[in-house]
Formats: sequence, structure tokens, C-alpha cells
Amino acid sequence: MADGGCAAINTKIEEGEGGYILEDVPHLTDYLPSLLTYPNPLQDNPAYSVVKQYFVDVDDTVAQKIVVHKNGDRGIHFRRAGPRQKVYFKSDEVHACIVTCGGLCPGLNTVIREIVCGLHYMYGVSKIIGIDGGYMGFYSKNTVTLTPKVVNDIHKRGGTVLGTSRGGHDTSKIVDSIQDRGINQVYVIGGDGTQKGAAVIYEEVRRRGLKVSVAGIPKTIDNDIPVIDRSFGFDTAVEEAQRAINAAHVEAESTENGIGVVKLMGRYSGFIAMYATLASRDVDCCLIPESPFFLEGKGGLFQFIRKRLKENGHMVIVIAEGAGQDLLTESMQSMGQQDASGNKQLQDVGFWISHRIKVHTFAIRASSLTVMIVADPTYMIRAIPGNASDNVYCTLLAQSAVHGAMAGYTGFTCGPVNGRHSYIPFNVSIALSLSLSPSRIGMK
Amino acid sequence: MADGGCAAINTKIEEGEGGYILEDVPHLTDYLPSLLTYPNPLQDNPAYSVVKQYFVDVDDTVAQKIVVHKNGDRGIHFRRAGPRQKVYFKSDEVHACIVTCGGLCPGLNTVIREIVCGLHYMYGVSKIIGIDGGYMGFYSKNTVTLTPKVVNDIHKRGGTVLGTSRGGHDTSKIVDSIQDRGINQVYVIGGDGTQKGAAVIYEEVRRRGLKVSVAGIPKTIDNDIPVIDRSFGFDTAVEEAQRAINAAHVEAESTENGIGVVKLMGRYSGFIAMYATLASRDVDCCLIPESPFFLEGKGGLFQFIRKRLKENGHMVIVIAEGAGQDLLTESMQSMGQQDASGNKQLQDVGFWISHRIKVHTFAIRASSLTVMIVADPTYMIRAIPGNASDNVYCTLLAQSAVHGAMAGYTGFTCGPVNGRHSYIPFNVSIALSLSLSPSRIGMK
Amino acid sequence: MADGGCAAINTKIEEGEGGYILEDVPHLTDYLPSLLTYPNPLQDNPAYSVVKQYFVDVDDTVAQKIVVHKNGDRGIHFRRAGPRQKVYFKSDEVHACIVTCGGLCPGLNTVIREIVCGLHYMYGVSKIIGIDGGYMGFYSKNTVTLTPKVVNDIHKRGGTVLGTSRGGHDTSKIVDSIQDRGINQVYVIGGDGTQKGAAVIYEEVRRRGLKVSVAGIPKTIDNDIPVIDRSFGFDTAVEEAQRAINAAHVEAESTENGIGVVKLMGRYSGFIAMYATLASRDVDCCLIPESPFFLEGKGGLFQFIRKRLKENGHMVIVIAEGAGQDLLTESMQSMGQQDASGNKQLQDVGFWISHRIKVHTFAIRASSLTVMIVADPTYMIRAIPGNASDNVYCTLLAQSAVHGAMAGYTGFTCGPVNGRHSYIPFNVSIALSLSLSPSRIGMK
Amino acid sequence: MADGGCAAINTKIEEGEGGYILEDVPHLTDYLPSLLTYPNPLQDNPAYSVVKQYFVDVDDTVAQKIVVHKNGDRGIHFRRAGPRQKVYFKSDEVHACIVTCGGLCPGLNTVIREIVCGLHYMYGVSKIIGIDGGYMGFYSKNTVTLTPKVVNDIHKRGGTVLGTSRGGHDTSKIVDSIQDRGINQVYVIGGDGTQKGAAVIYEEVRRRGLKVSVAGIPKTIDNDIPVIDRSFGFDTAVEEAQRAINAAHVEAESTENGIGVVKLMGRYSGFIAMYATLASRDVDCCLIPESPFFLEGKGGLFQFIRKRLKENGHMVIVIAEGAGQDLLTESMQSMGQQDASGNKQLQDVGFWISHRIKVHTFAIRASSLTVMIVADPTYMIRAIPGNASDNVYCTLLAQSAVHGAMAGYTGFTCGPVNGRHSYIPFNVSIALSLSLSPSRIGMK
Repeated sequence: MADGGCAAINTKIEEGEGGYILEDVPHLTDYLPSLLTYPNPLQDNPAYSVVKQYFVDVDDTVAQKIVVHKNGDRGIHFRRAGPRQKVYFKSDEVHACIVTCGGLCPGLNTVIREIVCGLHYMYGVSKIIGIDGGYMGFYSKNTVTLTPKVVNDIHKRGGTVLGTSRGGHDTSKIVDSIQDRGINQVYVIGGDGTQKGAAVIYEEVRRRGLKVSVAGIPKTIDNDIPVIDRSFGFDTAVEEAQRAINAAHVEAESTENGIGVVKLMGRYSGFIAMYATLASRDVDCCLIPESPFFLEGKGGLFQFIRKRLKENGHMVIVIAEGAGQDLLTESMQSMGQQDASGNKQLQDVGFWISHRIKVHTFAIRASSLTVMIVADPTYMIRAIPGNASDNVYCTLLAQSAVHGAMAGYTGFTCGPVNGRHSYIPFNVSIALSLSLSPSRIGMK
Repeated sequence: MADGGCAAINTKIEEGEGGYILEDVPHLTDYLPSLLTYPNPLQDNPAYSVVKQYFVDVDDTVAQKIVVHKNGDRGIHFRRAGPRQKVYFKSDEVHACIVTCGGLCPGLNTVIREIVCGLHYMYGVSKIIGIDGGYMGFYSKNTVTLTPKVVNDIHKRGGTVLGTSRGGHDTSKIVDSIQDRGINQVYVIGGDGTQKGAAVIYEEVRRRGLKVSVAGIPKTIDNDIPVIDRSFGFDTAVEEAQRAINAAHVEAESTENGIGVVKLMGRYSGFIAMYATLASRDVDCCLIPESPFFLEGKGGLFQFIRKRLKENGHMVIVIAEGAGQDLLTESMQSMGQQDASGNKQLQDVGFWISHRIKVHTFAIRASSLTVMIVADPTYMIRAIPGNASDNVYCTLLAQSAVHGAMAGYTGFTCGPVNGRHSYIPFNVSIALSLSLSPSRIGMK
Repeated sequence: MADGGCAAINTKIEEGEGGYILEDVPHLTDYLPSLLTYPNPLQDNPAYSVVKQYFVDVDDTVAQKIVVHKNGDRGIHFRRAGPRQKVYFKSDEVHACIVTCGGLCPGLNTVIREIVCGLHYMYGVSKIIGIDGGYMGFYSKNTVTLTPKVVNDIHKRGGTVLGTSRGGHDTSKIVDSIQDRGINQVYVIGGDGTQKGAAVIYEEVRRRGLKVSVAGIPKTIDNDIPVIDRSFGFDTAVEEAQRAINAAHVEAESTENGIGVVKLMGRYSGFIAMYATLASRDVDCCLIPESPFFLEGKGGLFQFIRKRLKENGHMVIVIAEGAGQDLLTESMQSMGQQDASGNKQLQDVGFWISHRIKVHTFAIRASSLTVMIVADPTYMIRAIPGNASDNVYCTLLAQSAVHGAMAGYTGFTCGPVNGRHSYIPFNVSIALSLSLSPSRIGMK
Repeated sequence: MADGGCAAINTKIEEGEGGYILEDVPHLTDYLPSLLTYPNPLQDNPAYSVVKQYFVDVDDTVAQKIVVHKNGDRGIHFRRAGPRQKVYFKSDEVHACIVTCGGLCPGLNTVIREIVCGLHYMYGVSKIIGIDGGYMGFYSKNTVTLTPKVVNDIHKRGGTVLGTSRGGHDTSKIVDSIQDRGINQVYVIGGDGTQKGAAVIYEEVRRRGLKVSVAGIPKTIDNDIPVIDRSFGFDTAVEEAQRAINAAHVEAESTENGIGVVKLMGRYSGFIAMYATLASRDVDCCLIPESPFFLEGKGGLFQFIRKRLKENGHMVIVIAEGAGQDLLTESMQSMGQQDASGNKQLQDVGFWISHRIKVHTFAIRASSLTVMIVADPTYMIRAIPGNASDNVYCTLLAQSAVHGAMAGYTGFTCGPVNGRHSYIPFNVSIALSLSLSPSRIGMK
């Protein structure tokens, strides 16, 4: 996939006064200009009748730049998510499919449930299928029929009822399958790689001139998606991570010179580690990928550890899995263990740092210093169902995607920008994710 | 207290291009123009040295209007919260006090803890006292000394370690006490009435020309504060409320024609009821103050209940305590029970609605219809400690207040506006709370 | 139903040396002496092959008297529960049914699940049906087919998947239904009244000479069953009740002279109240039906309240729903409110006691005394799924019942006696429950 | 320490009719025959006045053998725990100390709290100290004063407020410290090694002829103590372990051929693994130390895995840390990794088994088989506070110890035998723990 080419096609930029920029999402009419429209069936829904102005104004856009100066530029905007007056699909014409890819994340089942319930109850759609086991399920597995009854209780369970897998993205087989089955709305729930895959599916669908909306729902428990406020599951993950930190704190506190080490998720970003640290208020030191550190000497980790133990008698260290990778690589190389595989393999940083601390503290005083590792709670965190906050969020996210697809938008992901749900072009959400920087932490 | 007069003094409006408006907060130099400034001690803090541009630019403002049109007006802005390059208090000069008023709310202890820790660790302040038992504690009780050690674990407990009470606001006694004790930073944590009281304290402090910053931290478990995104404790409350809904659902489902009724907080707004409904996905009907309803006839509640029971065999109704007050009042009046007290006393709407449903369903069929009330979980909800999300939020809220007071701002409350913490003049947060409307729900 | 007659038939007493008494349960061969036996299919189960002596010795009995003197009497014994070498049903001959009656209780679904899984995996039984909605479901409703797949996840949900109701016991209709459907194992899960019903079903089945085993699984969240150690759901109930007490404690502690009142289940026994009190360690006063109290005067409740408030500034009172009924009745009568219904209707003791405390404390000092009721958490407690301990217990209970029925025992309930699961004749478990006394508390 | 000698001194055996045996505990009067007695101060306690026969009869003993035959032997009995009419210490004469040793366990703080509160409120004792950091704290650290106020909230926190350590047992230094400080009641909370230490302290105290009661409170999260029904913290541990199993199940279920592996505590016994397996109902295979297994061939683990995956598509394996140690040792030896340390070091069996499964399944089909380890939740489990059931249990345990020491018993541990709290001689509880066998599982 050529990012540049993708961007070239996707980009729909509009400009306005005061430096206003709108990064718009594609629409089916971009390449199928003569599509018919229909009134939104929601207008006849008694549940919505009490609310005036339920539909989103077509001109509504959401500002990304929220901290501004008096006469400064207005910056980038995105199209506001929500139901439109006109839709581009008749209810009985819609044939939707949902696929989940990549690792588990709290709230996955809620997103699935709410796409199904949203399509069914808001738009009267009855043909919805689930693709089994990720992208490869499009061409190698049976599908499952999804109805409100089938998904009724799934939001109370962790994991994904559709199954998941990594990889397996074969564009032409997938689009063949979409075409053969007569699917015209594709909901793809997954992380960065998955969204890139969805972008390619959208390109191919467009090339073939199909009336198929491709909507991505961004998933990353690490919260490392630019543009949007937070990713679903993150809040639940922080809540659960806090429990592991608390356990480490209790252990450390009960032993003389006890050190609790908690390894948390976060390959390229330390949001879970940082937020869990902020939430628990029990952590002495939080190491994240965005912020380099060193072990020995003045200003190093060991000095800080000695200081805290002297002051407090115990301490808790939280380390994101991607933190200190440079130091770890160095250690490994000096030990002659080369990484044969092309990919950057993340060595277990929790064991490494604990080992280094033990060796160091043993050297400086042969006494009662205890290091203990609180084993990585990653699987505990990934596998729980969404909490209340994530359930509400997943509901809005799923409904935004449904409203967008029904309104004919395609090649988009969705998510809250400064608190308002918006439609974001694939290229923006993917491109930016390659340039994450520590400053994002302060900006959140 | 005259709201008009208060507003007249407070208002600091600045305008800019494109319809830009800044609703600024008062500053000590508004009436004490010759105050000295000092470099912010944070600049020497090793924890912050890694981050460039840690301090907030003095010109940073936060846009309230986030859904905009291409060439539309920019609308109201607020001053961005955060640490400033210059402060108006020396560390050893500060004598801060904290008071909590009104009902309990998850996260109260976290806010207290983080004001203490923020002042201590960020600004080197050591003189911090707690006022015991709300406003009346200023003049009728002893104070307690607050140190990081004293507050170390309190965020893991519900309630408020300072105690609380309603009323007891005697402006001159309070300001006398502030003056006598040499207090120069007042942190007031409380709801709408409490913040009005803080506004009056600020007015009196200003009238007497005292160098005292008055900072309000808005507290309402109901989330019914305009301007800011959400109030602390709300997220925790929704999580807990969901548990009661789940219990009601289980009960209803296990019985033929079972109806579970859950009464939740919310006198004037139904946010907890709405969000818990959205989060649980188990509720058939959510009644809130913002949205009037009626019982009998076409489109009435009874018709809906009959329909749902026929379809589903059971149902769950969530009702906010302030919903249907007009109907309830009517019922009471027709039964000759007048409310002697001047205040509008809220009758228990959970019992009332259950009784009405029972009577109705008994009339239409003398059979196995069961109504059960799931007793009001209000006290359970109020008394738990904040969850991870609320703990992070309370930390930022407390630190914003501390940064603001140190920077010489006064007469302000703080909170996130579209995700960015901001300083908001008392008059804005109070005035708007009198004009809550149902449309706010859709806007959140 | 005549208790005397029932007892006359049921009683199977055997005596031995040293005052040994065995209160045995009926067996199908008591009235069908020529039944064939078959080897227990468990002997071919690979899961059990590793364990020697898996089967229970036919002579094993469990001692009820556990606190003994050197040369004292041995007392009453019960038949030990567990798998027997010989069974009286062939696997493909069994047609089992399960019914749940009365109120909800944590663990109900686990018991259902484990009867189904026990019959299926241990004994190869495939014909198992659930009776919908309690006793009346036998003759007025459809049944549901139960398989391990259907019940796979139900233990993670509260309530009962079979539905429940009170009453509806029509012996001849029920036994007709059993006979017509060819059911030969009846599992009845319910409280005291339900077990009495099961006893009558057993009598009628025996009268008609049917080869039908009737097994009762005793259910009472209140734990007020004599003979057995504890009832299922009780442990979960105490855990949850503790949460309400904790909330009351937080509320009370945050207010001057705050009094938290928690009303808990327990009409005739105060086990939940007592255990939750013991578990929370935050309760000042626990009022239970077994222990009478009075309000005014020396040694009265009011005096104790005044004392605790003076010492501590706040207090928590736990009251079981059946406590102080004499005082309550007196209050009601003096107010002219007679209870027209024949049954003893329990007035809400939580509201009553709170009202009385308010009136009293207002009389003695017109000051800041606050009384608050923590609304009855009954529905929250009843509706949650069983905790780990109750799940293990429910599994053993269900398996005991299955082993018993397969071994040809009938007219029995089961449960742990001093930690060993046993078969108990209906008359013992029912008869004793009418003579509960306070001394049982100390004896547990 | 010579076990034989210890046993020789300790053993107080009494016999009765029908094969009755009483294994009694030592008493101060065994070597200090002329000690004075005092009336138990509980008799004046208003809280106990309502209960008749509050005191335990001196002849009460508790039967260990509960499954009996009609004319069989009565077997071993223990002295019943509880308050006695006469005590051997005056309230103001008591100087008690509490020490916690070894690893953390839920409920430790509750035991500490209830020894303090029991001594204070039941017996009017005011001199209670805590030994800091385990046995070595007797001679190398300061002590802390313990009052009901100090320990008021500690049962809501995990860990031990007294700190803990392993080893450090220097008998003469410890008894010197006891003698020098004038301590006359020693409460030792710890595991097997700790109780052996307490036995030696008792021997030395007796040798020196000191009026000092030594009471052991047995602690092992693994529940591997013979004689007593269960150890404190076990119930909480199972509850928490179930969470990890649930996560593993969700992960496994969401992936094709997913295998979740959960490693749980249990070096020499698999109680936590077994009970968590029974409680969760989601485990396909539970491997424990008591039950040997093999990997390859017919009846081996690999065959079972292949079978389950074929049937179900996923599976969950629970493995106790001490399971399969023989296989693991063999693997290690064949890889040339000798264990230099004299002690048997337990290799991480979770990683080992996962690795072996991966290698095997890769060999048989090079396809999509996924093995994942759910990292060891050991630290999470150890560090949480006790649940309601454990809190009640810890309370009774602590009170039993207090009643025993006040009544002049010494050299004893305590715990429930078939549901009744009893006093058990050190030699019985220690000796038996060396002969744990798989059959115990079936017997529980």
C-alpha cells in the first residue's frame, strides 16, 4: 500500500476565513454522483420525536484546535458525526458486515452490539452479518447472522464474539467476498494496521465503482491514536491497571526496602502507564517510551531509587512495555543475543529492569533489599468487559459509524475530537500515528 | 446576595476578530495593582525539566464553541488553566485553607489530597489547613493541619475527611476568620449554592482589599454544571448506578411481567439516569426532569409499559428523582397533602411511580403483574471513592485550582471546557446553571 | 399437608452404640423393593480413574454433634452424600426436571447449571427439562430443554434462567404432569415452603408407586435452615451487604452526629445482618429478630445511641427486616393501623426505626443531629451472581443431589453438615426450621 | 529444632470410651502449677449479658472424625476454642505482642486488628505492641504501639501494617527480648516455618519457666494446613484467582485454537488451583502437585489438549506452581541447567508448560495454534484485603487465640475443625503438614 497514493485520492480539503481548514471524508457520490437519497427513517421514530433539531446540520464541523489565541488561526476541522436528514441507503437494501481484527480490547463487544442495534432500531436494517476471525474470515470462514437478540448480552462479556486474528489481509479476496455476498456496508474494528487495511479496501471498492461504504472504528487499548480524544477500552484498562499498581504498592509497603515493579501495555506510547499512575497516586516512578531515561549516574534511575528508598523505605515503579527499549537492546547486544527476526522484538522490559535493579542494589549494599515483579496484568486488562464510561463511548462510536455509512460517507474512521464525535479521513488518522511525540501527553 | 451586582463586578470581557469573546476571570491585581511577582518554583523541579514549554502561554484561551460552521462566529472563550511563568505568592508566604460543603460525591478526598500535594510538591507550600464541617467550620470549629502524609491514602476512601454540612454561610464571620488566621488562599469545594457563597466571599475579600485568592472547585454528582464537560464523581456515579440497574434487570427478567424500577439522583437534570441507561443497555424507559411525560392515554407511560411487557415479558424503568414532579405534585394536591414548607419538597418519585403502575396494571388485568422497586441506590453511589477516571480528573482539577491561585487569579472556578482545563468566572458557572435545558443532553 | 403424617411416613431411624442415631432418608426400594441396580457409569470416567476410593461407602454417615464430651452421647447422624457404586437408573432411562421457586438468591443459576452438567457429564443423562416459572409451570407453561451448552454461561448471571414464582403448588396437577411427561427425577430448588411442597409431591409419588426420585435443594438467602452449615447465596449476600454498610459508614463519618441505618434481609433470623456486621467491623449496633430490644430508658437503644454519638461523633446501625416487630406492631396499633390481612405483614422497619430515632434525638437536642437511611440493598443483594465460594458450594450441592437421585434416594434435601455433604430427610429440615432460636447464632 | 523432642514435651493425650482420643494443648499450669485465676471480665460485659451460657464448657472437645460408621471408633478430638469462666491473666497485667512473618495473605491486617480489639474490648487489655518486620524485629527494630484506634481501618487494606520478613528466627535473642520487655502473650501469625519457630519459642519460654502464652495463628494462602478446615485468605485468593481464569477464558475463546494458561499459587498443594477451577467452571484442565501427569502419549496432556481443541476450538489450563516439578526438573537437567542452590528451586512452570505446548502443537500442525500465558496473578492475589467471609473468619480466629491465651493455654495454634474453632498443639499442625496427600482434596 502506497500511503502517498492513498492520501492523494482521499484528501478533500476545504478552506475558510481566519485560517479555517476542513479535512473532509470521502462520500459515495464522489465516484457515484447519481445516487438517490431517501428521508432518514429516524424522523418517524417516536423516541426522537420529542427532540427538536435531532439531525446534524450538513455544515457542522468540529474544531481540532481548541487552545487558541485571540486573533490566531482557526486550524483544522473535521465533519461532525451524527444522523443526517437524507440517507443514501434504503433500509431493506442495506447488507452490512462487521469484522474485528487484532488484539482484544474492553468494549469490543459493545461496539459490535451497538452497530447491530443501531442499524436495526434506528434504520430498520435486518441484514447484518459478522465475519468470523478477522480479515481472513472474509474468504476462509462462514459468517454469523447478527440480530439484536443475538447480541443482547454480549456487552457484559470481554473479548469479541466474532473472534479475531492478526494479518490475513488479502485485498482482492476480501473485496471479491464483499461483492459476491452483496455487502454494501463494511464496519472494520481494529488498530492501526487494520485501519490501513480498511483504507486499501476502500480504495479497491472505489476502483471497482461499488456502492459500498467502508467505515473504520479505531481500536487501540494504548490510546495512541492521534486526532481523537481517546480510544475505546482505554478507560477500563486504566481502571484495571490501577489494581495491579495497588497490589505492587501493598507488597512493597509490607517489606523493608520493597520495590514493586508493574509492567503495563504501551509499545510506542505510555498513556495507560501514565494515567494509571495518575489515578493510583501510589507510584514513585513511571517509565514510558516517549521519555528516555538512563540507569547509572547522576539523574539516573538507580540514583532516584536509592533516594526514594532512603526517604520512604519502599517504592513502586510502573514501566510501559516499550520504555527503555534502547537500553534493553544495548544490554541484549552486549550479551550477544541478536534479534534474528526482521521485526523489532520487544524483550520483556519488566524482567529486565527488575534484574538490573537487583544487580545494582546488591552491589551497593549486600542487605535486605527486595525487588519483586508484579507480573504483567496485560491479559487481565485486555479481557474484561467495558466499564460504564467505555460502554457509553462505544455506543456513541458505533452509532456515529452507522449514521455515517447510512449518510453515504465512506473511507472514514470516527471518534470524538474535543468531545464531539467526528468523521476523520483514513489518511489523517493513520499518517499522524506515525509521528507520536511525548508532547501529546501534555496536550491530552 | 444580588446576582446582578455580582455579575456587574466580575465581568471581564475581551473581544477579538471573527466574533472571538474571552470571558476572563478576576485577578488580584485588578484591585491590588502593585503586587510583586516571583518566578514559578516549578522551573527548578527536576520532574518537569524534561518537558519543554511546560508553562501555559499567558494568551492561551479555550474555545467553548466547538461545533462551528466555515465562516461562522468564534464565540466565547475561557482562560486556559495551568502553571504560569510568574506567580504572585512566595512559597513560604502561602497559607491555604480547604473547605468541603454540601452532599458527598466520589472523588472529594482526591481533590483535597491533590490540592495539598499540589501546593506542597509543586510550590513548596507547607501551611495548609482544612476547615472542619463546611462553611460553619470557619467560625465554629477547630481546623486540621493538612500535609501530604496526612492525606496520603484518603483518595481510596469515600466521603470527605474534612466533614461537610449544608448552609452555615455567614460572609462576614467567614472573611473575619480568613483575615484573623492570615489565610491567603481559599479553596472551596461544593455545589451551586456553595459556589455562590464563594462568589460572595470573593466580593467581600475584594471589598476589604485583601491579598486572598478564592478558588472554587465545582462539585455536583448530577453533572449539571454548564460550561464544563463533566463534574467530578459523575463517572463513578454512573458506574455504580449501572449496578442497581443490572440488579433490577435480573429481578424483572426472573419474574413473569416483572417491572424493575430504579430511582437515581438528579433533581433538575437527568445525566446520571441517562448515562447509566446508555451504559447498561438494559433499560426500557428512562424518565428525566428535562423531558416531561404523562401516564395515561396514547403516547403515555402506561401504554408503553403494556407494549413492552407484551413484547418482552419484563421491563426496566429508570427514573431520576426530579422527573415527573408536576404529575407528582398534582397527585399530592388531589390527595390534599400540601407542602407547607416554602421549598419545593421532592416527594419520592420511585415509590409514587411504582404505586401508580401497580394500580394501573391491576385495573387492566387482575393477574400476575409484578411491580418491584429497586430501592434508591443514592447513598451507595455518593459514598464510594472515585474510580480511576475520576481520580485522574480530580487531580487535574485540583492542580488547575492551585496553579490559578498561585498565579494570582481569584473569584474563579475551574474545569475542563471541551477537554482543556480552564478558569471560569463565578458568574458564568452560576448564571448558566439556572437555565439548564434538555438540549444540553444531546450536546454533551 | 399434615406435618405429623408426613413425619410418620418419612422417618427412618437407626440406632447404634454410644447413643448413635441415624436419621436416614427414604429410598425408592422402600416401596419398590424389586428395582434393578446398575454399575455407576462414573467408574469408567477417565477423570475419576486417578482417585482411589472415589465412591462413598454405603455405611458412611455424618455426625451432627461435633462438640462432644469425653464419654458423652454420639447423637444424630445423617447419610453421607456422594456417588454410590450402584445406581438405580440407567443413563438413557433418566428424564429429569428442574424447578426454581420463591425469591431470587445468588447461585441459583449455578445450581441449575451443575444439576444439568452433573447429570450429563457424570451420568450420561441427556433428557433434562426446566420447568418455567416455579411450581405452576408444571401444569400451566411450556418447559425448556436443558443441555450443558444452554447452561454454559448462566452461572455468571444473577437470577434464575428458569423464572420463578411463589405459590402455585397443586399437588395432583404437578404429579399428573410428572407422570404424563414420564419424568423420573425431580429437582426442586426453593425455600421452606417450597421444600414442604416437595415433601408432599414425594408423598403423592410414593402413594402412586412411581419410580420418581424427588430431591430438594434448600434455598434461603437468610441462611435460616437448621441442620446444614449454610445455605447457598449467603456468602455472596454478606459480601454485598457489607458494601451497603460501608456506604452508611462513610456517610455517617462525614457528617456531625451522622447516623447510618442499613436495613438488611432476615425475617426470622439475623444471619446476614450479623455476618455483615462481623465482616465490616464498622457497625455500632446490629438489631436482629432473635434478640429483642427496646427503645427508651436504661439499656435501651436511644441511650446507646446517645452514648456512641458522644464518644465517636457518628454511628452505624444495622437492622434485619424482622427485628423489633413487636415494637413496630405496637407503634402501628397505637396509630390505629390494623393489619387486615391474616398474615403478619412486615412493616418497613428501616423507615420506622429512623423515624423514631429522629423524633427522639430532636426532642433531646434541637441541634445538628442527622439521621439518614441507607436504602435497603435487598434487591441488589438478591440479584447478583454467586461469588467463588458460593459457586463451589452450589456445585457440590447440585452434584450431591444428582448422586442421591441416581442412587435411588428420594424425599431428601441435601447440604453440608459440619462440612460434609449429607442427605437429610424433608421432615428434619422443615420441622426444625420452625424452632429457630437465638442460641443458633452462637453455635454456628 | 528437634521435632521429636518437641513432640515429646508437647503431647498431652487423653483417651475415652469408643476410641475417643483428645490431643490437648499445653497450659501454663503444666509448668507453673500455682498460678492464680481470675473471673473472666466478659461476664460483666453488657454485650454478652443477653446470651446465656456464653462461656465454653471446660470439657467441650471437637471431633476431627466426622464421617463415621455406626459402631466405629470416635477418633481424635481437640479442645474447643472460646472464652473460659476463669482466666490466668489480670487485664492490667497483660503485655501482648503481635508479629507477622512470611509472605502476604489476604486478611493479615484483620487478624492483627481483631487481636488488638479482642484484647482491648473483651479483656480490657491496654498494653499491646506490634513487632516490626517479622521475627528479626524482636531484636533489631523498634516496636509499634497498637490500639483499637491505630488498627481501626487496617482490615480494609491488603498486606500487613506490621511489615514482614522471612527467616530471622534467633530463639534466644527473641526470648531475651520477650523477657526484657516483660511481654507475657505472644501472638505469632505465619506459615509452617513460622509456626515451627513459635514452637521453639514456646519450648524456650517453658524451659525458662516464664509466664508467657505463645499462640500461633496459622497463615498459608495455599490452604495446605492439615486438621483445620481452611486457612484465612484462601477464600479471597480463590475469588481473585477466578478473575485471572476468566480473563484467560475470554482470550482463548476469542482466538482460533486459543489456549489460556493460568499459573496459580500452590507449591505442595493445589487447593487454590482446584477451588478456582471449581468456582469458575471455565477450566478444561487443572494440574496440581498432588496429581502427577505426563505430556506425551496416550493419556498424556498433549493428547487431551488435541482432543479439547478439536471439540471446542479453545481451552483453559490452570497449573499450580508446584505441579509437574518432576517433568520440569527432567527438562532442566536435560538442558544442563543445574540448580546450584541446595534448596529445591521452583522453575516457572507456567512458562515451561506454555513453551512445551507451543513446541508440540507446532510440530503436529504448522497452523494457527495460539498459546498464550496469562501471567501469574500471584501478587495480585496476595495483596488484596480479605473479603467478607475471610474477615469474619479472621475475627473468629483472632478471638479464639485471645481467649486461649487469656485462659492460660500456650504452645497452641487455632482454627476451625469441622466448623468449630479449636486449639491444636503445634506438633499436630506441623507434623501433619509434612504428609499432605492427594486424598485430602477429595476429603475437603
